[in-house]
Amino acid sequence: MALRLLLIGDIVGRPGRRAVRECLPSLRQKYQLDFVIANAENAAGGNGLTPAVAEELFSCGIDVLTGGNHIWDKKEVFSLLDAEPRIIRPANYPPGAPGVGYGIFSVREHKVAVINLCGRVFMPDLDCPFRLSESLVAELRVHTPLIVVDFHAEATSEKIAFGWFLDGKVTAVIGTHTHVQTADERVLPGGTAYLTDVGMTGPRDGVIGVKREIVIEKFLSQLPRRFEVASGPFQFNGCVITADPSSGKALTIERVQIYEDE
Amino acid sequence: MALRLLLIGDIVGRPGRRAVRECLPSLRQKYQLDFVIANAENAAGGNGLTPAVAEELFSCGIDVLTGGNHIWDKKEVFSLLDAEPRIIRPANYPPGAPGVGYGIFSVREHKVAVINLCGRVFMPDLDCPFRLSESLVAELRVHTPLIVVDFHAEATSEKIAFGWFLDGKVTAVIGTHTHVQTADERVLPGGTAYLTDVGMTGPRDGVIGVKREIVIEKFLSQLPRRFEVASGPFQFNGCVITADPSSGKALTIERVQIYEDE
Amino acid sequence: MALRLLLIGDIVGRPGRRAVRECLPSLRQKYQLDFVIANAENAAGGNGLTPAVAEELFSCGIDVLTGGNHIWDKKEVFSLLDAEPRIIRPANYPPGAPGVGYGIFSVREHKVAVINLCGRVFMPDLDCPFRLSESLVAELRVHTPLIVVDFHAEATSEKIAFGWFLDGKVTAVIGTHTHVQTADERVLPGGTAYLTDVGMTGPRDGVIGVKREIVIEKFLSQLPRRFEVASGPFQFNGCVITADPSSGKALTIERVQIYEDE
Amino acid sequence: MALRLLLIGDIVGRPGRRAVRECLPSLRQKYQLDFVIANAENAAGGNGLTPAVAEELFSCGIDVLTGGNHIWDKKEVFSLLDAEPRIIRPANYPPGAPGVGYGIFSVREHKVAVINLCGRVFMPDLDCPFRLSESLVAELRVHTPLIVVDFHAEATSEKIAFGWFLDGKVTAVIGTHTHVQTADERVLPGGTAYLTDVGMTGPRDGVIGVKREIVIEKFLSQLPRRFEVASGPFQFNGCVITADPSSGKALTIERVQIYEDE
Ligand SMILES: [Fe+2]
Ligand SMILES: [Fe+2]
Ligand SMILES: [Fe+2]
Ligand SMILES: [Fe+2]
Ligand SMILES: [Fe+2]
Ligand SMILES: [Fe+2]
Ligand SMILES: [Fe+2]
Ligand SMILES: [Fe+2]
Repeated sequence: MALRLLLIGDIVGRPGRRAVRECLPSLRQKYQLDFVIANAENAAGGNGLTPAVAEELFSCGIDVLTGGNHIWDKKEVFSLLDAEPRIIRPANYPPGAPGVGYGIFSVREHKVAVINLCGRVFMPDLDCPFRLSESLVAELRVHTPLIVVDFHAEATSEKIAFGWFLDGKVTAVIGTHTHVQTADERVLPGGTAYLTDVGMTGPRDGVIGVKREIVIEKFLSQLPRRFEVASGPFQFNGCVITADPSSGKALTIERVQIYEDE
Repeated sequence: MALRLLLIGDIVGRPGRRAVRECLPSLRQKYQLDFVIANAENAAGGNGLTPAVAEELFSCGIDVLTGGNHIWDKKEVFSLLDAEPRIIRPANYPPGAPGVGYGIFSVREHKVAVINLCGRVFMPDLDCPFRLSESLVAELRVHTPLIVVDFHAEATSEKIAFGWFLDGKVTAVIGTHTHVQTADERVLPGGTAYLTDVGMTGPRDGVIGVKREIVIEKFLSQLPRRFEVASGPFQFNGCVITADPSSGKALTIERVQIYEDE
Repeated sequence: MALRLLLIGDIVGRPGRRAVRECLPSLRQKYQLDFVIANAENAAGGNGLTPAVAEELFSCGIDVLTGGNHIWDKKEVFSLLDAEPRIIRPANYPPGAPGVGYGIFSVREHKVAVINLCGRVFMPDLDCPFRLSESLVAELRVHTPLIVVDFHAEATSEKIAFGWFLDGKVTAVIGTHTHVQTADERVLPGGTAYLTDVGMTGPRDGVIGVKREIVIEKFLSQLPRRFEVASGPFQFNGCVITADPSSGKALTIERVQIYEDE
Repeated sequence: MALRLLLIGDIVGRPGRRAVRECLPSLRQKYQLDFVIANAENAAGGNGLTPAVAEELFSCGIDVLTGGNHIWDKKEVFSLLDAEPRIIRPANYPPGAPGVGYGIFSVREHKVAVINLCGRVFMPDLDCPFRLSESLVAELRVHTPLIVVDFHAEATSEKIAFGWFLDGKVTAVIGTHTHVQTADERVLPGGTAYLTDVGMTGPRDGVIGVKREIVIEKFLSQLPRRFEVASGPFQFNGCVITADPSSGKALTIERVQIYEDE
């Protein structure tokens, strides 16, 4: 029987957490979800993650939280990452970074591995995600063929290349970071579900989660501005992947969008 | 009676031109299209535009070709831009650049203005598209309220901010450049149709149009590689906007995706 | 009789202000200085400028303070820039930015114009400094041929090109921003004194003014770190330009370096 | 008796090679040089290196050629790097790149190790030079304490941090890549000679070696332009380091500048 996984796009602040709380129960039922992964790099006040926010998200039914370039923005995350194996951060930060970049989790009678990696184009100077993924995937496949990669990256070229690079070796490569869901979901020929970006779960009418007046003002003035999470109705962005547990191959990928005011 | 416009995402090389030739007739019929705009910055061999390629695209029924950062890559385009008002390039290149950044075109008994602008985040150092659009839109609204903007940009934040900035002032702000269609189409509250990126019309199984082996090799090796347009089946990416000709407001926006092998 | 100007490189925090206070009197005497310009974008605690810090620097004998990308970092600067004509900020920030980008000052019986401009390569998205400088210089030459440009930029190519671009039109093009003095001072054939970067006036043994342990740690870990101004002995970096007041042409340019512990 | 090393800044095209041929004999005599290292990433026509050009430079008396981000620009270099141990390229390119990133060379009765590394700020996405240098230096110190590092990087912060990072572990950290010599040479407290950038050996009156009209035109127009090496008189940029062969510590560092027309 197929495994059903939900991956939730970058949760931004209070509106994003509200979206999770309100949408997850019905999605769980509708899709008969076995496992829920969510990117939480912006979950606490728009940037970073705290123990309280992580606890809140786990209590909503999320099984694993992933990170990105903003996962480090609140200092409390450093000890949290070392203490909580259900939170992973990009694996290609330098050795010595708090926490780990992957985890293996029990789902029904199976094991699901989750990997978090960052791209490098227009991003911080990290270790090569392509090379690192090769060894990491080989290692994890000893334990399970069910491997989901959250590839946190900006450039479409790097993300698509990464999807093809891992096609046939992992269950899914799902992009995060741009906060806009793309419409290119597909199962690649080798059996890997791919989506360039799963989008954002947060305030709908801001600019990638931030109050739009501030962002527009910043583009116009080029002066420093302090960003604030936008208010108003939420959007929930995610994707559901079904996979064959014995082969680890993806069977389907479906995008999910829910808007509060509709 | 509503005006029906199609905007086609970056046409890449021969496979992209084939996609236009094969898909446009049936789309024209299905949507009863009045006007067709296409981004052509990659139409000639993956980068740039030549007179022959432009002619080929016009003969397929495209009314206006827009550009982007790659529109300059073939030298023949310089005189072409000065000679052909149906080809426009980003308006925010410095004064003195060949060609113009907008045009007004007759559609049925109406006039439709098309503007092409480039973003600046992770892009060349151009004039501010926000400021320039203010004066440009004001000028064009003297002639017509039907204004379509091809905003050629990389960062989702800049694109979404730009959509909100022009909401209520133009008919549509449609993003190009990333070559991946996003799934966030909507008519903003002020009546402006918005889509972060309309995607790419070209080879489906490459990396944003390029042979995937080469791109992967480049990410792995960080050595210079000459890119080649991918072969194989095409994808057609576009969006259809309907607009009220008297107010210029958008009524609907719908994404279009066609795959050759399906 | 030749005019003698000193331009002081980016003053960083308390150690930089101490360097000015201790070095300026003897330099004034040694070079018989007529006019002193200093870049102050990092004068207050390593980033930005406050009224108290500006007052302190004026009281040391500096005549004009210039800015850069960091001039905006302390909020107090916004009203200060509007109130104090002796402080200028890069002229190519968008219209509406507080303050102005140039000034004309009385020096002996002459007038000296000072312009501040930012480069764009690896820097914020500002208006083109090349184009803006053309109109600005033409305007200022109506009043005086003595024009000094602080070109605040990162890339050597942009800085050198800018020097050649203005050669013969201004008295001097002196680079700031990299915090390292370059050794390429010369009077260009048209009579413009040029130096790619005048350097930094601040703590000598940090990394461009910041505690070196923190910067090294950041490069190693790629994690966010709060920077602190380094302590220890200072360095003073500047350059002295002599100019013919009637033609505005530079006669000589000489680099100045003073180290506290030597 | 102290060892005397010359490091020559990026040799650009024909004018740069002429500068080497004309200046090296007298410098060798003046400084009683034991060993000559030169950065050759731009030696062939402004970008890259060919076997004929490498041969020409060796015949002038250069002992080792180093590279940078442009070392790969001519295809002939790939086999050259594998065949010629006297040419090294940045060590932090991914495993599998042609050639090697360091070498050990016999100088009088001593051994001198040379390492070439690239920075990452505003540069390609390579492996961490800080981390790699730690293992590389440890390995090489087994053979010799005389280690010279050509750190090919853009940002002053990364270069200065790197100098401090290796202080006391290597004989010298000398920057290349910006093509402008900096004036901050010093022997750091631990005994490492440091210079942020040694500069360029090539045409003096271009823009970092390129015809200045073309570069200015490109900054003004933001349109693609093909660069050409500038003509006219040359400049020679280098630095001489003296070192204690038994400890590997630097004793002195002196900048060298020669201009053809003076
Ligand atoms: Fe995010
Ligand atoms: Fe992110
Ligand atoms: Fe494109
Ligand atoms: Fe583009
Ligand atoms: Fe500065
Ligand atoms: Fe600066
Ligand atoms: Fe170079
Ligand atoms: Fe270089």
